[in-house]
Amino acid sequence: MIINDSIVALATPSGAGAIAVIRVSGPDAITIVSPLFKAKSKKSLKDQPTHTLHLGNLVDGERILDEVLVSIFHGPKSYTGENTIEISCHGSQYIQQEIIQLLIRHGARSAEAGEFTLRAFLNGKMDLSQAEAVADLISSENQASHQMAMQQMRGGFSNEIQKLRQELLNFASLIELELDFAEEDVEFANRDEFKSLVSRIQQVLKKLIDSFAVGNVLKNGIPVAIVGEPNVGKSTLLNALLNEERAIVSDIAGTTRDTIEDEISIGGIGFRFIDTAGIRETEDIIEGLGIKKTFEKISQAQVVVYLVDSSKLSSESDRLHEVHVELEKIKNQFPLKPLVIVVNKIDQLSEADIERLRNSLSDINGASLQLLSAKNGIGVEELKSKLLEFVSTGELRNNNTIVTNSRHYNSLLSALEDINNVQQGLNNNLSGDLLAIDIREALHHFGEITGEITNDDLLGNIFANFCIGK
Amino acid sequence: MIINDSIVALATPSGAGAIAVIRVSGPDAITIVSPLFKAKSKKSLKDQPTHTLHLGNLVDGERILDEVLVSIFHGPKSYTGENTIEISCHGSQYIQQEIIQLLIRHGARSAEAGEFTLRAFLNGKMDLSQAEAVADLISSENQASHQMAMQQMRGGFSNEIQKLRQELLNFASLIELELDFAEEDVEFANRDEFKSLVSRIQQVLKKLIDSFAVGNVLKNGIPVAIVGEPNVGKSTLLNALLNEERAIVSDIAGTTRDTIEDEISIGGIGFRFIDTAGIRETEDIIEGLGIKKTFEKISQAQVVVYLVDSSKLSSESDRLHEVHVELEKIKNQFPLKPLVIVVNKIDQLSEADIERLRNSLSDINGASLQLLSAKNGIGVEELKSKLLEFVSTGELRNNNTIVTNSRHYNSLLSALEDINNVQQGLNNNLSGDLLAIDIREALHHFGEITGEITNDDLLGNIFANFCIGK
Repeated sequence: MIINDSIVALATPSGAGAIAVIRVSGPDAITIVSPLFKAKSKKSLKDQPTHTLHLGNLVDGERILDEVLVSIFHGPKSYTGENTIEISCHGSQYIQQEIIQLLIRHGARSAEAGEFTLRAFLNGKMDLSQAEAVADLISSENQASHQMAMQQMRGGFSNEIQKLRQELLNFASLIELELDFAEEDVEFANRDEFKSLVSRIQQVLKKLIDSFAVGNVLKNGIPVAIVGEPNVGKSTLLNALLNEERAIVSDIAGTTRDTIEDEISIGGIGFRFIDTAGIRETEDIIEGLGIKKTFEKISQAQVVVYLVDSSKLSSESDRLHEVHVELEKIKNQFPLKPLVIVVNKIDQLSEADIERLRNSLSDINGASLQLLSAKNGIGVEELKSKLLEFVSTGELRNNNTIVTNSRHYNSLLSALEDINNVQQGLNNNLSGDLLAIDIREALHHFGEITGEITNDDLLGNIFANFCIGK
Repeated sequence: MIINDSIVALATPSGAGAIAVIRVSGPDAITIVSPLFKAKSKKSLKDQPTHTLHLGNLVDGERILDEVLVSIFHGPKSYTGENTIEISCHGSQYIQQEIIQLLIRHGARSAEAGEFTLRAFLNGKMDLSQAEAVADLISSENQASHQMAMQQMRGGFSNEIQKLRQELLNFASLIELELDFAEEDVEFANRDEFKSLVSRIQQVLKKLIDSFAVGNVLKNGIPVAIVGEPNVGKSTLLNALLNEERAIVSDIAGTTRDTIEDEISIGGIGFRFIDTAGIRETEDIIEGLGIKKTFEKISQAQVVVYLVDSSKLSSESDRLHEVHVELEKIKNQFPLKPLVIVVNKIDQLSEADIERLRNSLSDINGASLQLLSAKNGIGVEELKSKLLEFVSTGELRNNNTIVTNSRHYNSLLSALEDINNVQQGLNNNLSGDLLAIDIREALHHFGEITGEITNDDLLGNIFANFCIGK
């Protein structure tokens, strides 16, 4: 594919800030900007070396649009691999738009979403899985998703795939060569070595496929259902959990939490808290529907937090019995789902009451008990540790490659199926031409991940999810 | 003032975008960033020439935070005049915050609002009025406010003030010198030349002071009161006025107009439309209060648009009479305020009806009549021209210096008062020591504008209005 036009877009978030960056990329990027830029040094931008910065005015005829700082990159030494100009202008939206319009009038085209990164891929600056990681990186909101995206962007994952694909490709060519000499019954590809490669590939694929369970959950946040009636202190609990992290987010405008269904970063990992209406015993049909909904939400969650107001437990003795019944219901319905019983507002209880509650609730089979006061912060750290225990972060800590992208996951599943077929064929002493078909299928699915095999639809889908300007 | 710390802040708008820019400035900017940056080229940032760009990883110990592009500026060749590093990172808010936290842990300090520009001022990179223009430029939303801010930032205004101040200073020293020789009755300062300088200064000051009326209005948008009952088509009219400009704003996220009180750019000039409830004749006390409010809003407006639905005029003959009464009221109350009668929905009328309306309404003394159909766009361009006629944009078109800042305006007023005193003193042959007092006062007020005379409170007030990162 020959790219012969130049694209322009705002690369920084829209809105008001001190500065904004407008990016132009393409064969004519420098030729388009050069006559519009009057450097303080009087030098023409066209004559400037790559990776240098220049202060000057951006002009539309006689009119000065802005005093800007221009970065120049000569292809292929740029993000896209093309000639690229980055214009750092004053942050007014009016100025941003005037500059973009000026550049469009002078031959640039408004960039599509992700088009800069698409070009980087098409120009061989990165493979497809790395390009996808760029979008993941930009949308990463906590340490875990950031780390996984960084790893993928730096090629950890695709290197592994690439290497296996190359080895498989070597065997494929040997086997295809055998086909040319079919009548002579030669065997260029050592079948034992091939079997060992196939089983190595199987192992790697299985490991990567398994990692998706962790990766997908870490990327999207661990869903935690909070089961509890109104006024047991859900909001206070979430605020208490958020508290430590607030210092980190406070400087960012717009990070207010309005709803209780929100993501909180604990220990660098995102937890998505899902509010439910509770499951108090009822004869009422409408409330019965509410309970059905609660169970639906629990089924989607990875962890269940059962929140109860301790002050209610001491004053109404019936309530404690109800709590036991409700907890039993949850355990019966979801025997394998981690359950934490959180008893809130213990600051309002005497030591004796606390002890009585602890004894009464600690015998719920397989559930973990946490007494706390969200208001005073008592027990909040312990709850955080408990939540983190439910997440298998080992793979993350060990810097293992983790698959987070469902497209990759599907390709890996298909590749494993092909490889299993190859293995079966080898065990059954299948002829080379039949083996070759499955090998080619496997190569195809490997190639899909890194982008050796691609098509316009696939690329369109992937890059449509990018933001404009990247 | 010796600045010995280094500051850091996000320079691009907060929120998600392709990239974000983090700016570090101060004597240690390069020393702080250098050990945290591993360039692809393996070279140390410390050894890099000014105005160059470097790709590499930003690291926190072993952990790679992001692949970034670093710009390096050696003071005084930077915006602030200090060593400056700009880090262009991926646009994730998580990454932005991690990088800023990293830099703070390594010795940078979180920048206050406008602190980069304050440093540029303190380091003599710009005078105070230029620094103030930077904030105006960033908040400029249309061509007029942009042009005025650009002119001020480029020093058009302060050059003029500076030159006059220098000339005045020369005379001041001559007169102060005379005081040293008081007993010899010499006259170093030629009184005729001084008188002519004083009258030149008066003229310039008056011109600048007069320009504030235009400048202030252009900067804040021309207030236009729309008088009209609900359902006469106010929203449709505003949308029709906005239509041509929509192409310009459509690419900017978040520029939706929810309320009718909003600013629309017409011919590069901002118009603020103020909705009123109309002034239909009434006996009702509460509606009477509504009319009082309408008149209040009209008194704040620079132009009045009286909007009436033509279809109502043809069906109810009484309404036409009412309209006449209402228009008379407005003209009586505000005889000098430009008034445009806009008859909307003429697409629903016959030619004969239109002619009848035109005749009936064109005799309102001093009011301008515009028939239009906001729905079909008929007459919208003509209304725009009419609105622009009410704005004296001559000064803007002629590229004259326009004062837009009320602080400057106040200083200019004070300076003019001082200069008038000097003139009076000269005419009364006042002695040199008395003249010197008024001259020194004038010099002081000139100096306030450009920042030769300043204090911490003033600077604090000015830069507190900046955004962080600029």
